[in-house]
Amino acid sequence: MNDVVVFSGHAHPALADRICEHLGVRRSPVDIKRFSNDCLQVQLLENCRQQDVYLVQPLVPPTQEHLMELLLMIDAARGASASQITVVMPHYAYARSDKKDAPRISIGGRLVADMLVTAGADRVLTMALHAPQVHGFFSVPVDHLTAIGVLADHYRDEDLTDTVVVSPDLGNAKTATQFARLLGLPVAAGNKQRLGDDRVVIDSIVGDVAGRRAIVLDDEIATGGSIVELLERLKDQGCTEASVACTHGLFAGRAVERLRDHPMISEVVTTDTVPPPADWPELRIRSVDRLFAEAISRIHHGRSVSSLFEGVDPTHAPPQPRLPF
Amino acid sequence: MNDVVVFSGHAHPALADRICEHLGVRRSPVDIKRFSNDCLQVQLLENCRQQDVYLVQPLVPPTQEHLMELLLMIDAARGASASQITVVMPHYAYARSDKKDAPRISIGGRLVADMLVTAGADRVLTMALHAPQVHGFFSVPVDHLTAIGVLADHYRDEDLTDTVVVSPDLGNAKTATQFARLLGLPVAAGNKQRLGDDRVVIDSIVGDVAGRRAIVLDDEIATGGSIVELLERLKDQGCTEASVACTHGLFAGRAVERLRDHPMISEVVTTDTVPPPADWPELRIRSVDRLFAEAISRIHHGRSVSSLFEGVDPTHAPPQPRLPF
Amino acid sequence: MNDVVVFSGHAHPALADRICEHLGVRRSPVDIKRFSNDCLQVQLLENCRQQDVYLVQPLVPPTQEHLMELLLMIDAARGASASQITVVMPHYAYARSDKKDAPRISIGGRLVADMLVTAGADRVLTMALHAPQVHGFFSVPVDHLTAIGVLADHYRDEDLTDTVVVSPDLGNAKTATQFARLLGLPVAAGNKQRLGDDRVVIDSIVGDVAGRRAIVLDDEIATGGSIVELLERLKDQGCTEASVACTHGLFAGRAVERLRDHPMISEVVTTDTVPPPADWPELRIRSVDRLFAEAISRIHHGRSVSSLFEGVDPTHAPPQPRLPF
Amino acid sequence: MNDVVVFSGHAHPALADRICEHLGVRRSPVDIKRFSNDCLQVQLLENCRQQDVYLVQPLVPPTQEHLMELLLMIDAARGASASQITVVMPHYAYARSDKKDAPRISIGGRLVADMLVTAGADRVLTMALHAPQVHGFFSVPVDHLTAIGVLADHYRDEDLTDTVVVSPDLGNAKTATQFARLLGLPVAAGNKQRLGDDRVVIDSIVGDVAGRRAIVLDDEIATGGSIVELLERLKDQGCTEASVACTHGLFAGRAVERLRDHPMISEVVTTDTVPPPADWPELRIRSVDRLFAEAISRIHHGRSVSSLFEGVDPTHAPPQPRLPF
Amino acid sequence: MNDVVVFSGHAHPALADRICEHLGVRRSPVDIKRFSNDCLQVQLLENCRQQDVYLVQPLVPPTQEHLMELLLMIDAARGASASQITVVMPHYAYARSDKKDAPRISIGGRLVADMLVTAGADRVLTMALHAPQVHGFFSVPVDHLTAIGVLADHYRDEDLTDTVVVSPDLGNAKTATQFARLLGLPVAAGNKQRLGDDRVVIDSIVGDVAGRRAIVLDDEIATGGSIVELLERLKDQGCTEASVACTHGLFAGRAVERLRDHPMISEVVTTDTVPPPADWPELRIRSVDRLFAEAISRIHHGRSVSSLFEGVDPTHAPPQPRLPF
Amino acid sequence: MNDVVVFSGHAHPALADRICEHLGVRRSPVDIKRFSNDCLQVQLLENCRQQDVYLVQPLVPPTQEHLMELLLMIDAARGASASQITVVMPHYAYARSDKKDAPRISIGGRLVADMLVTAGADRVLTMALHAPQVHGFFSVPVDHLTAIGVLADHYRDEDLTDTVVVSPDLGNAKTATQFARLLGLPVAAGNKQRLGDDRVVIDSIVGDVAGRRAIVLDDEIATGGSIVELLERLKDQGCTEASVACTHGLFAGRAVERLRDHPMISEVVTTDTVPPPADWPELRIRSVDRLFAEAISRIHHGRSVSSLFEGVDPTHAPPQPRLPF
Repeated sequence: MNDVVVFSGHAHPALADRICEHLGVRRSPVDIKRFSNDCLQVQLLENCRQQDVYLVQPLVPPTQEHLMELLLMIDAARGASASQITVVMPHYAYARSDKKDAPRISIGGRLVADMLVTAGADRVLTMALHAPQVHGFFSVPVDHLTAIGVLADHYRDEDLTDTVVVSPDLGNAKTATQFARLLGLPVAAGNKQRLGDDRVVIDSIVGDVAGRRAIVLDDEIATGGSIVELLERLKDQGCTEASVACTHGLFAGRAVERLRDHPMISEVVTTDTVPPPADWPELRIRSVDRLFAEAISRIHHGRSVSSLFEGVDPTHAPPQPRLPF
Repeated sequence: MNDVVVFSGHAHPALADRICEHLGVRRSPVDIKRFSNDCLQVQLLENCRQQDVYLVQPLVPPTQEHLMELLLMIDAARGASASQITVVMPHYAYARSDKKDAPRISIGGRLVADMLVTAGADRVLTMALHAPQVHGFFSVPVDHLTAIGVLADHYRDEDLTDTVVVSPDLGNAKTATQFARLLGLPVAAGNKQRLGDDRVVIDSIVGDVAGRRAIVLDDEIATGGSIVELLERLKDQGCTEASVACTHGLFAGRAVERLRDHPMISEVVTTDTVPPPADWPELRIRSVDRLFAEAISRIHHGRSVSSLFEGVDPTHAPPQPRLPF
Repeated sequence: MNDVVVFSGHAHPALADRICEHLGVRRSPVDIKRFSNDCLQVQLLENCRQQDVYLVQPLVPPTQEHLMELLLMIDAARGASASQITVVMPHYAYARSDKKDAPRISIGGRLVADMLVTAGADRVLTMALHAPQVHGFFSVPVDHLTAIGVLADHYRDEDLTDTVVVSPDLGNAKTATQFARLLGLPVAAGNKQRLGDDRVVIDSIVGDVAGRRAIVLDDEIATGGSIVELLERLKDQGCTEASVACTHGLFAGRAVERLRDHPMISEVVTTDTVPPPADWPELRIRSVDRLFAEAISRIHHGRSVSSLFEGVDPTHAPPQPRLPF
Repeated sequence: MNDVVVFSGHAHPALADRICEHLGVRRSPVDIKRFSNDCLQVQLLENCRQQDVYLVQPLVPPTQEHLMELLLMIDAARGASASQITVVMPHYAYARSDKKDAPRISIGGRLVADMLVTAGADRVLTMALHAPQVHGFFSVPVDHLTAIGVLADHYRDEDLTDTVVVSPDLGNAKTATQFARLLGLPVAAGNKQRLGDDRVVIDSIVGDVAGRRAIVLDDEIATGGSIVELLERLKDQGCTEASVACTHGLFAGRAVERLRDHPMISEVVTTDTVPPPADWPELRIRSVDRLFAEAISRIHHGRSVSSLFEGVDPTHAPPQPRLPF
Repeated sequence: MNDVVVFSGHAHPALADRICEHLGVRRSPVDIKRFSNDCLQVQLLENCRQQDVYLVQPLVPPTQEHLMELLLMIDAARGASASQITVVMPHYAYARSDKKDAPRISIGGRLVADMLVTAGADRVLTMALHAPQVHGFFSVPVDHLTAIGVLADHYRDEDLTDTVVVSPDLGNAKTATQFARLLGLPVAAGNKQRLGDDRVVIDSIVGDVAGRRAIVLDDEIATGGSIVELLERLKDQGCTEASVACTHGLFAGRAVERLRDHPMISEVVTTDTVPPPADWPELRIRSVDRLFAEAISRIHHGRSVSSLFEGVDPTHAPPQPRLPF
Repeated sequence: MNDVVVFSGHAHPALADRICEHLGVRRSPVDIKRFSNDCLQVQLLENCRQQDVYLVQPLVPPTQEHLMELLLMIDAARGASASQITVVMPHYAYARSDKKDAPRISIGGRLVADMLVTAGADRVLTMALHAPQVHGFFSVPVDHLTAIGVLADHYRDEDLTDTVVVSPDLGNAKTATQFARLLGLPVAAGNKQRLGDDRVVIDSIVGDVAGRRAIVLDDEIATGGSIVELLERLKDQGCTEASVACTHGLFAGRAVERLRDHPMISEVVTTDTVPPPADWPELRIRSVDRLFAEAISRIHHGRSVSSLFEGVDPTHAPPQPRLPF
């Protein structure tokens, strides 16, 4: 594979390196300078002219710094006549600002999408957007990957007798259903109740969990608060052990201390879309490196990315054959 | 009120007339011609120069015809030097195409938003978008109204003893919760189960409905299929009478026959965001005309639209006072 | 020919098939779904990534439906990372809305051009635009084909003694003059007189037609009204038999009954830029399939399209050699 | 009239002064500097902030210089926070480059339209575009005036017995027909014959001109060649005297000597959309100053411009009342 | 003054308050929330509809945070239908990234300008841009203020006998020359010598400074390094006391300790375009609040901003009267 | 080299020919027509479809004519489906209009950059921009070459004993410093003093020039006025002979007579970015043809352009190796 050029900002160079290894290319160096007035400057230290450039940068804290690095890398690549620029953003944090649920509020998910395109992005490769509608915020093509196959692989060799997949949120149980189907397991879900406009609690479990071991599956774990709450409800219903799995393991605030030693949690499984917390050696991390490398390779060679996910996720399932008119 | 100019296409002139009546203006005439090659042409028969122009057109069947009328009206108003053009689209049908849940699929909700802006729309005034994220598909300001206050008014004089508000979809129960709070009632919701990728059934009810009368509240009723299914589940749980309420009463396909004579349904209440079915005199219609007229008046005079909805919908609730830094 | 991907909407799949046959490719299937609210959704059932995609769709009735299908196909192809998207629109019906001849009127020809580009079209391949200026409405390259060579071929084997080519409109007689030159025939033209602002009649014939057989050539026949009127004037001048030829045979309204059994008409010749009427077996149809296939092949391989038309149409004639400075 | 600010480049300050006089404003000064490298720089010497700015500049030779002056004036006004910028371009010379009638040819009419908009023009006020489709080349509103009322006024006090209006080109006789109707006269037209692709001759006259005095009406006279040719044909048909009238009197090349002393021409009448030739005192010039001043006033005050032309030109005629649906 | 609405982010609310005081308006509150994933969200807590909105935010450290706050405020104001949005950015830190002096380097000054416009800024009000060309990076109007009048006022009451104005950089001595002229003083300048590509030293002083007191004037002081170097050279030439003045007093890194107790420095004078360092009570700060308030008032009322600076700075001097053509 | 297509306007076809010769391609012919109304039209007489097109045109007098030719060539190439269009503009004259140093002044450097992009330019290849910030005026990639290596080559074989490089302007001495380093020479510079706002004089020389021969190096010589002034100051300091070198030898106004016979000038050396004056056979011209040809070749083949200048100009120096994170 010849003219794929991969750069990484400071957000997650280790993932970029693993992706490069699968692609069989060397990660190209970047020089990111911080001036005394705190402004950043990016220099790409590899020829980009007419090249197919990939910029790896998930939006993780410090989020504004990493976003600006990414925008400056795009600007530099465009100014250097890259033939196409693909933003590889395994975690798009601003996707959570996706609606106007109060007057005169910013919609950061759309704003940042517009900024990436203004800077010069030709395509975005991302994973597990908070809401599928966020795809429509981008005016350039988005390739949207899923990690549930990778997470399911983690459980394939385990004894799954009397195990149930539990989604914290009944409203978003679609992903959990697919995950369960991959493993041949039943599904249950937490039932969120709204207390006032801002506060939400999980007040019951829909589905049978008594006496079973749970695999709690969520897209993203930030502070871990709702996972802990879900575990309370599971215990109420007679479920006393859980494995917790998520795509984006942010583990912000007190999340590590909440989850690491929680008596009900047997293990926490996540991916490397974001860097792991430093102080949690037991955390089980399944890499999405091969998935991203394969997607990049398919983008570069003009092969279908969606067919990567046959049978896994209808978002990426192959088109059902229908009779053409 | 001087220089508000209101035009309407063929989609719903009756609603435009009612809005105009509240505004105290005459609806301005439009000439829409169809050529022998089936192309449309629009002529606005009122001076638009430097005027504040409002184009009323919900996207109802025949949807493509009404969309093209709307685009041509925008084009004509822009070419005629209107000072600002507000698209008043009480029902945005293409909002349902809001995600890419299969490979190489169109996202009509974003595409039509871009088309309206390309044609020259400066602002969109709409009601009850299918998903709140669709707001972010527009690159121009959107004023997003809610009808739940209008629908709640319908029930204020009724005897609401032993009544429960039921949402067909637990995942989208937020609106029902607000509606219930306006009437001081409890809430329940249908619990959708996914069978395969495409089929969804309501297999249980979360919340206590036994022996109660239900007010089933949905954003939109198209074929009525899921309402009928929900009624089955309600009956299973001991609820035998329901009033059905929705914002967008499309009643497409067999909806009228399904709902009009359904033994459990005491009444169906909707609004006039879309024209009513011809053959259903008993349908209870609460007009949103005053709401749209008030919003237009506030847009025109530069007053807050969100404050129209204080206490009704957090999407439009007044900002909570917070201490500024 | 490897990576040309051709899709067709519902407007004219038969033509798309014939073009594909000449190209030696299989037409790729599309799934076009209509929802209960009358909205359309398109799914392209073939990989488009980095492919050279061609979307075949003339704008024929129901015009708005076919336009929306086309826009959604473009949107889907762009979202699927097509490397370039060429809209193959053998008949661009909205080209007739090309000027502002009344106040506050829409200019559909420009609006639809902007919509196609907004959706993502990179190039347009079309035939016989109503006015050559419409080319300038597009901000992307347009390849503009002519069918007069194809129509002339129809007459080559006939006995053309005492035959004259007649244009219905003296003002647009340029095409007829070229056509006549291809066949070595003289030209005449109807002389339109304006009665009031809207009504136009043909009140005389310029050129000698007495005792001759006419080949009436028009770009497009919609209702056939002006053809019938022209025939009256030809009869007045002593011409009693005519062959009628046109590029775009729309035959809308009462056109078929007017023309099929007209006593002066010996035959009607048209092309397949639009689907033929169902009830007119005698209609002589010359296909433009090979012309479009050849243009697509040249676009794909980076060869000149204009040189296809050497000696036929100055719009596409080869540049006259001039001395470079 | 308070905050209309009018600037003029070097193309036609005298017309700008006359327009200002009718508006009751002083023309604001501009400093246009030419550097030693032949680049131009514009400074507007009047406050533009939040003002309604009008830039008067027809595109007359040296055309590229005047175009660049105009673009720089627009740029300066936009940079100075003008609230809206109207380009007053009484003659749009590039409108003649309106189609692609040879391969790889520029379409200057569209390009210059895009350049004006890129520089910051919000609206264009022009007169007698070469083809009505050129209107559609602009993505901003165009107000398109006609001078035929002004030209007709010239003839009202003359004896019009046995007079006929003659259009040089039958294909564009629409304007002549309207002009004739204003004066209650009949119409005739030259019949252009195409000789080869480039050369066109007028080979006959359609309509009765024998023994009559002609008023030859054309949109624009450049070299005067086709007028002289038309006069030959008129003489052939027994018409021996002509008054020649046109909107844009460019009189380029040998036009003045050709027309000034032509034995058949009794007078030449034109307007001041472009500056008059220096050496032709007998040329009769009717000013369009009041028309432009009135249009500017209506634009500024938000009144209809089209109603200026009731009964004169269907391009600007008032909409016929039609029954609204 | 009625409908000016002023918001401020966290960068410098004190300056915003002082500007508001001069304008006689209350600063409107903003709620800026930080989510657990480090993303920001902005809510403007005052009606913006059809209002003239000003967002005060210099780009000071943490620069990326403050930039994102600003972008989100713009986005929120645009979404809330503000009639125009003026970014009041007293210090534009990214202006220093203004050229491509190494391969594949980002040009942050242009990128951030594009981002502000993409977010929705209609105009920028700023002060003392690092290079005057940066003005041209913005595609919206820029009002560019100068503080040299404010700084000169500081010295008017002092004894200026034997005082000389010294610019650290001979190449940019234009501002110092103007400043000196305001005070009737002579000018001198440091002469920078380039050692290798990156390092620059001041190796001599041009102009007579021996035995004089210096007023060292610079646009911006970041680390203070080049000021200290200049003082060394001044001492070499027999100048032993200096007052140091600058517009943007960033005082980053070791600047405070370097300058506060420097034996040659009698006082340091700066403005409040950026917040002052916490630990330097002797720093003399002249506020630019009135200048910004006056500029905002003139923008709002459509009066000239440049005339604010008559006689001070040719960048804003009134146009010299020239004879109009 | 196969599919590079090079066209030239009238500005400098000789340079285009020399570039083509180095590339081993034939310059493709263009037909540029001037109509009687002074409008220009361009026809490219070579297939452009999917080709890599280069348009060579420096902006030299008559500047507006050459600019318009260039814009029309871009428009024609884009309309002809060129795959990418590179504007090769060896001298960008409008770069001097790069700031707003008076109120309501145009910034031609940004305006023309926007016009080139609007017309369809994908990239700009230029040399020695007046200020490096002008690079940031373009929203497309710019490849910015330097001629100092070419000019230095001229002196390599000369006896450079007791020679000093002199920059007319101390502020812009960076280029002279690099040039001197290439030849192993010391540097001096003129010291410009500002007299009033408009007038600038060179009042002293910084650096030791007494008894030496000077090589005066400037980017551009227009009227030659400041060179003559610099020579006066050099003479004052005891330097009596100078060789004068510049990249852009415009020699406008009285420049030739001023410089050709100046007693102190031994020779004048320039490049061929612009055509040479007709009447100056002794002018020494070093061609930049090979440099442009090499840059075009690298652009076409996707190799680094900056590495062309290793060791010459830090603007294009190779990135210093830094440790990647």
